[in-house]
Amino acid sequence: MRTGIWLMGARGSVATTSIVGALALRAGLTGPTGCVTELPELRGPALPAFADLVLGGHDVVATPLIKRAEALATAGVLPGRLVDTLAGELDEVERALRPAPAGGTQADRAAAVARDLTDFRDRHGLDRVVVVNVCATEPAAVAHPAHADLVALRAALAGPDEVLPPSSLYAYAAFTAGCPYVDFTPSTGARLPALAALAAERGLPYAGHDGKTGETLVKSVLAPMFAMRHLAVRSWSGVNLLGGGDGANLADPAANAAKVASKQRVLGETLGYLPQGDTRIDHVEELGDFKTAWDLITFAGFLGTGMRMEFTWHGCDSALAAPLVLDLARLTAAAHAAGRRGPLPELAFFFKDPLDAPTHSLVEQWALLRDLVAGLHRGGADGQPR
Amino acid sequence: MRTGIWLMGARGSVATTSIVGALALRAGLTGPTGCVTELPELRGPALPAFADLVLGGHDVVATPLIKRAEALATAGVLPGRLVDTLAGELDEVERALRPAPAGGTQADRAAAVARDLTDFRDRHGLDRVVVVNVCATEPAAVAHPAHADLVALRAALAGPDEVLPPSSLYAYAAFTAGCPYVDFTPSTGARLPALAALAAERGLPYAGHDGKTGETLVKSVLAPMFAMRHLAVRSWSGVNLLGGGDGANLADPAANAAKVASKQRVLGETLGYLPQGDTRIDHVEELGDFKTAWDLITFAGFLGTGMRMEFTWHGCDSALAAPLVLDLARLTAAAHAAGRRGPLPELAFFFKDPLDAPTHSLVEQWALLRDLVAGLHRGGADGQPR
Amino acid sequence: MRTGIWLMGARGSVATTSIVGALALRAGLTGPTGCVTELPELRGPALPAFADLVLGGHDVVATPLIKRAEALATAGVLPGRLVDTLAGELDEVERALRPAPAGGTQADRAAAVARDLTDFRDRHGLDRVVVVNVCATEPAAVAHPAHADLVALRAALAGPDEVLPPSSLYAYAAFTAGCPYVDFTPSTGARLPALAALAAERGLPYAGHDGKTGETLVKSVLAPMFAMRHLAVRSWSGVNLLGGGDGANLADPAANAAKVASKQRVLGETLGYLPQGDTRIDHVEELGDFKTAWDLITFAGFLGTGMRMEFTWHGCDSALAAPLVLDLARLTAAAHAAGRRGPLPELAFFFKDPLDAPTHSLVEQWALLRDLVAGLHRGGADGQPR
Amino acid sequence: MRTGIWLMGARGSVATTSIVGALALRAGLTGPTGCVTELPELRGPALPAFADLVLGGHDVVATPLIKRAEALATAGVLPGRLVDTLAGELDEVERALRPAPAGGTQADRAAAVARDLTDFRDRHGLDRVVVVNVCATEPAAVAHPAHADLVALRAALAGPDEVLPPSSLYAYAAFTAGCPYVDFTPSTGARLPALAALAAERGLPYAGHDGKTGETLVKSVLAPMFAMRHLAVRSWSGVNLLGGGDGANLADPAANAAKVASKQRVLGETLGYLPQGDTRIDHVEELGDFKTAWDLITFAGFLGTGMRMEFTWHGCDSALAAPLVLDLARLTAAAHAAGRRGPLPELAFFFKDPLDAPTHSLVEQWALLRDLVAGLHRGGADGQPR
Ligand SMILES: NC(=O)c1ccc[n+]([C@@H]2O[C@H](COP(=O)([O-])OP(=O)(O)OC[C@H]3O[C@@H](n4cnc5c(N)ncnc54)[C@H](O)[C@@H]3O)[C@@H](O)[C@H]2O)c1
Ligand SMILES: NC(=O)c1ccc[n+]([C@@H]2O[C@H](COP(=O)([O-])OP(=O)(O)OC[C@H]3O[C@@H](n4cnc5c(N)ncnc54)[C@H](O)[C@@H]3O)[C@@H](O)[C@H]2O)c1
Ligand SMILES: NC(=O)c1ccc[n+]([C@@H]2O[C@H](COP(=O)([O-])OP(=O)(O)OC[C@H]3O[C@@H](n4cnc5c(N)ncnc54)[C@H](O)[C@@H]3O)[C@@H](O)[C@H]2O)c1
Ligand SMILES: NC(=O)c1ccc[n+]([C@@H]2O[C@H](COP(=O)([O-])OP(=O)(O)OC[C@H]3O[C@@H](n4cnc5c(N)ncnc54)[C@H](O)[C@@H]3O)[C@@H](O)[C@H]2O)c1
Ligand code: NA
Ligand code: NA
Repeated sequence: MRTGIWLMGARGSVATTSIVGALALRAGLTGPTGCVTELPELRGPALPAFADLVLGGHDVVATPLIKRAEALATAGVLPGRLVDTLAGELDEVERALRPAPAGGTQADRAAAVARDLTDFRDRHGLDRVVVVNVCATEPAAVAHPAHADLVALRAALAGPDEVLPPSSLYAYAAFTAGCPYVDFTPSTGARLPALAALAAERGLPYAGHDGKTGETLVKSVLAPMFAMRHLAVRSWSGVNLLGGGDGANLADPAANAAKVASKQRVLGETLGYLPQGDTRIDHVEELGDFKTAWDLITFAGFLGTGMRMEFTWHGCDSALAAPLVLDLARLTAAAHAAGRRGPLPELAFFFKDPLDAPTHSLVEQWALLRDLVAGLHRGGADGQPR
Repeated sequence: MRTGIWLMGARGSVATTSIVGALALRAGLTGPTGCVTELPELRGPALPAFADLVLGGHDVVATPLIKRAEALATAGVLPGRLVDTLAGELDEVERALRPAPAGGTQADRAAAVARDLTDFRDRHGLDRVVVVNVCATEPAAVAHPAHADLVALRAALAGPDEVLPPSSLYAYAAFTAGCPYVDFTPSTGARLPALAALAAERGLPYAGHDGKTGETLVKSVLAPMFAMRHLAVRSWSGVNLLGGGDGANLADPAANAAKVASKQRVLGETLGYLPQGDTRIDHVEELGDFKTAWDLITFAGFLGTGMRMEFTWHGCDSALAAPLVLDLARLTAAAHAAGRRGPLPELAFFFKDPLDAPTHSLVEQWALLRDLVAGLHRGGADGQPR
Repeated sequence: MRTGIWLMGARGSVATTSIVGALALRAGLTGPTGCVTELPELRGPALPAFADLVLGGHDVVATPLIKRAEALATAGVLPGRLVDTLAGELDEVERALRPAPAGGTQADRAAAVARDLTDFRDRHGLDRVVVVNVCATEPAAVAHPAHADLVALRAALAGPDEVLPPSSLYAYAAFTAGCPYVDFTPSTGARLPALAALAAERGLPYAGHDGKTGETLVKSVLAPMFAMRHLAVRSWSGVNLLGGGDGANLADPAANAAKVASKQRVLGETLGYLPQGDTRIDHVEELGDFKTAWDLITFAGFLGTGMRMEFTWHGCDSALAAPLVLDLARLTAAAHAAGRRGPLPELAFFFKDPLDAPTHSLVEQWALLRDLVAGLHRGGADGQPR
Repeated sequence: MRTGIWLMGARGSVATTSIVGALALRAGLTGPTGCVTELPELRGPALPAFADLVLGGHDVVATPLIKRAEALATAGVLPGRLVDTLAGELDEVERALRPAPAGGTQADRAAAVARDLTDFRDRHGLDRVVVVNVCATEPAAVAHPAHADLVALRAALAGPDEVLPPSSLYAYAAFTAGCPYVDFTPSTGARLPALAALAAERGLPYAGHDGKTGETLVKSVLAPMFAMRHLAVRSWSGVNLLGGGDGANLADPAANAAKVASKQRVLGETLGYLPQGDTRIDHVEELGDFKTAWDLITFAGFLGTGMRMEFTWHGCDSALAAPLVLDLARLTAAAHAAGRRGPLPELAFFFKDPLDAPTHSLVEQWALLRDLVAGLHRGGADGQPR
């Protein structure tokens, strides 16, 4: 099952790390640490092999991939030697990258993206192409009446206005070209009724939102722990310090707000009440791709006794995100092959703000994922369109 | 279903907090924070009501319960006002406490304990009495041939030797008197073939070992998180600083070793390999009943990138333990009523070192517990003897 | 040397803790832990004895002192028993409190305050009264031309405008009544040329600003450590979580900004450059008077190697502040007695944002303080007006 | 002033980092971050220039310096590119290294070391050679009567017994060859009356013990902070997790004990009392040269209110130590040039367990250092023999 992964934001940190990692895995130069789909519980024939993955993508900047990879090596995210060894393969991917279309109406740009996707599929003889959005986080989108209706949307896109944020325009183009779509960012993406209608019309699955890699991952196991022990969480405050492109972008208050909301959701939904306290994101250039998050949790036990827990998470965001990007592409490709369409709530395990997810507990999400994958490996019994 | 809870170590911190808490719940003076059996998912008719609990116990010291409770109030473990209000009820429990039998052979002492249990049951017209061991942690027990065989054990107990450690002698006496037995400590308790045979003979359930209240509780959700994300834990080091009676006792290297082993087990069994690093327990008198644990976890992600997490847990051990003591007594009573016998692996949720437990993941243990309780509430379908 | 301490904001947490503490010290019910002036290096005859302190003050609210003290006892700031024991003495102080004057021009209000101060001095036969501002932090003050000139200020105060923020009006009133003034808050206070002129005219000393009790205290020893070791601090980020009156007040962005600026100053001035990173203050009601601050410091050593330090400070703000309020009042009284006038830079040890301070290193500030006090004890040789 | 630095343990982490750093500084390839003697307050003509330093040393292993440097680069301690660039210069130092003499009596070995030192001085035309001990920490030494008397020592060394631990034999050899001696380790070194007599006889200065680079450095500013604020430290517990050669060595309980004692000294001597709590050192291979220390401090403030502080220090031990090794060698050389003899208490700033130091406060030690250096720069007025 030859599978394309088309990365929107293909020259960013997450994308570059995903590309180097996929190439290293294909070449047998690294092990699958961090790849959830390579755990014994999930591994199997329904998923495209690393050898069958072909990478491409769009970006608005033109920095050569190899430069980006070298910068990530200097920053300690990628092993320098690996980047050197893979220079040839990286160059090949470089040739599959396209500039994000600019100018014209949004309809023109969507058509150009769809054309790039179809070309890519044809040129490489791919069974399918999964589009994964790893662009910089957008500010919260402005509502527009055409968001609610596919016919209205098509008409509006042909006009002069910027009707859709880029993430949603990419979802529109992906669906138009018959490609499943995964949104790894907190941006709007496919979360509009008109786009849900388009995916349904084209029989395509999609997944999102916002990869769960750090503080929220920890929250998704700690919050259930407090809940299962009937301990009353009184406050939960967090601060995230990060540099890098994403850090700078999130310093923008509008983008920050979107991210923070998706971070607090897990608490309210797991505990059944919202404790006091906020989550903050601060940009500290010098931290680079390594993020430090600190959380303080105060809670009450039996007879009201006050207690507290704090944790510090010091993670490399791109190294945590990249294997999940590969996991999501492989899983979504397999779901597509099995005929699944619409949102994939069984992929909630990967997201801070999962689509249609019945639970925010990581372990319950794991069970959903395991069941989905078991079905896919069995030949899609559970993979029937729903 | 009038149910007795007989506490071995009845004048200790955990026991005193359990007693004050049970009385406060019965009197409606506090809410059930920390009581797992009062969660909506578990609450129900099969469990004895707080109003139906009667408390008693043994101890080797004679400090009046009220003095212990006042000391705990000064230390911030119990609300002072609550202790004052419950003085009368505490006095009633005081009268149900007995000195731990001393002198004579171990058989004599076991008989005396069994007599105290039967008297207690009769005097209060109880349906059953659950014995819960919350004595100070014992040093690792010395092996003895009679541990393997019930007949040999009975003979040996009648002789002059100290064949069984106190925790096991208490289990022996409990079973003899027809009482289920729960071990909240890391001591040997019922974990001897001869005692398993006795429980089977008498058709009694039992549970243990070592209440999971702090660092290990956190480990039991964090370790699965790393495992599910296919992250390679390279080292996990921990230090536990605690004062109080338990702290002083654990400063004894032999007791410490038992506790530490039970703390590391969760890692090896959850991850499938044992990371580098140790867990340490240090006694710091001044910390009193509040324990501070600090853990450092280093792990590798995709392409070998090194990352780290640390957490500090600042918990009140007795406040965390006491509601679980009540939970365990209620659950074991209900299991007994439903005809369950032998070890209760479904109670693994509560223990650092659970008997026959199929998993060390807290959430999987939670599922086992929920299923057990659902069965009990349905009238015991799942509660059939196995 | 009978000395009055007149507290502006006399019913707040810091003031109430200062009052209870002063009464407890006078009654011999507590030791001088936290009182810098009781260290062997500073203790001596030039400072007014605890027995010679008389307390009074203004506030805009009327909550009885005893209620405030009881609330602080419930919150764990004050020992409950102590509050009970001192009920009589607290009542006496209660009678010395006055409502903050309202209505009329600012000149009228200043005159009313000055009258209250003179009355207090006369009624109690005091040698002098030190005014200490412990009111809630004000928003940054609006500039006014009259701030620069005492004659213009007098004229403006008689008009209808609010020329001075309350903290400065209190400084004006204090100086008018011949009282030294200490500002424990980040508010403007005496930091206006017109007020400096007034203090000079009246021969009065004053001190400020913003008591150094938590994160900044730690910074004032850690930043010099990095500097003395020639380590390059790359980023220093901090978050302060606090509840209580001060926390709620600082949630107001304007007040927050003033406080944060005074917190970062120590870094820039000690290191000679400003590292990346911000300090944040968040209000978390549930934390009450206990503040948790967390700081992350990243730094480079030899050959550029990156390292990091983090600390968590969990302090009771009022318990840290109150003994310093007493220290400052005693020291300023002694300085006044010795004829000192103008700002007292030797008290920089106590402040986040000290007036005219030559250094932000705590230990160097300590040396300045020690020399000042030695001079005062020697009979004022160093205490000559400058 | 051409100055030799002779490193005992020349192929270890600290030594290798010192060598690479000295070469990089000489070549202008790095800045002096971490070098205390390059601070504006200390820099000056009395100290030998980096260009005038020549390096040599002994070790018991033969691993080529370049291999050790490459390993340190892989571990993130040294920049890989720097090691490549300096390969030629490293090779030059390699040729100046000698195997530690073995076999024969201790007198024979001391003579061989002294010969190596003299050869080195002559071959390179050096004004003087400072011997710096950076060998692995020794177990606590066994007492011997000859330690107390130089004549007895000379006699005993000629016999068959191992009278001196290696660090002391090196001090003996250094003094015999007319070289000042610095001990960067917690080992015995020059701390024996017989060696003090020898240094006096030869008119040589010496310094030690145990470089202060991590947790103890932080303690030496935090403990004075608590003391100056009259806060009562109730407990201070610490854990040090480290890998590398030093970590493995310190896992040996005897070496550990020596190190731990030198770590706690600062508390007792600064606070005037010893708080509860211990310091632990645990070996975690995977942490390599990066050490993580965590300390918990509980303290009481005004009216007994309990508070706490914790810090995590994540430092690269060799990167912290190496510039201090260069500082110490330069300072001791200058002191020797100025005629100083005997222990140098003014270098306490650099040591956990300083010789004859009047204070454990880092800032007071800084003042001593600054005064010493000022005297040296003025031409030795303060540098007169004492
Ligand atoms: N790294 C993680 O752990 C993690 C977790 C969850 C979500 N995310 C999300 O992943 C996204 C990428 O993160 P990153 O660290 O790689 O950021 P980055 O800034 O390094 O990369 C983003 C890339 O997107 C490109 N881009 C921006 N707008 C575009 C557009 N309209 N069309 C095409 N390309 C565009 C940029 O040029 C850049 O190359 C962010 O939205 C982030 O929030 C990351
Ligand atoms: N508190 C927790 O979070 C927690 C968690 C897991 C396990 N535990 C275990 O619970 C036990 C109790 O802890 P604690 O803090 O109450 O300790 P504690 O020292 O306060 O109380 C122990 C009591 O046991 C009594 N005792 C000792 N030997 C006895 C004997 N042979 N017969 C009868 N009584 C005896 C003592 O006199 C004392 O009153 C310990 O074994 C501890 O390891 C506690
Ligand atoms: N606690 C600390 O560690 C610390 C450290 C540095 C500075 N401070 C400063 O001390 C001040 C007091 O802190 P707190 O915790 O006691 O706050 P708080 O809110 O408990 O008390 C402030 C009191 O000031 C009164 N007040 C407000 N405006 C007034 C006015 N115009 N005239 C008279 N009274 C007025 C309020 O009614 C209240 O009673 C704050 O400005 C705070 O920033 C405190
Ligand atoms: N790195 C720090 O921050 C720091 C701080 C204080 C003290 N120290 C001390 O510095 C010393 C060196 O630390 P390291 O990390 O470089 O250790 P290391 O194990 O990397 O190096 C020690 C070297 O000493 C050599 N050696 C051992 N015995 C010897 C002998 N008798 N003669 C000659 N050479 C011998 C070993 O072969 C090895 O090469 C240790 O004693 C350590 O405690 C280090
Ligand atoms: Na921490
Ligand atoms: Na911490």
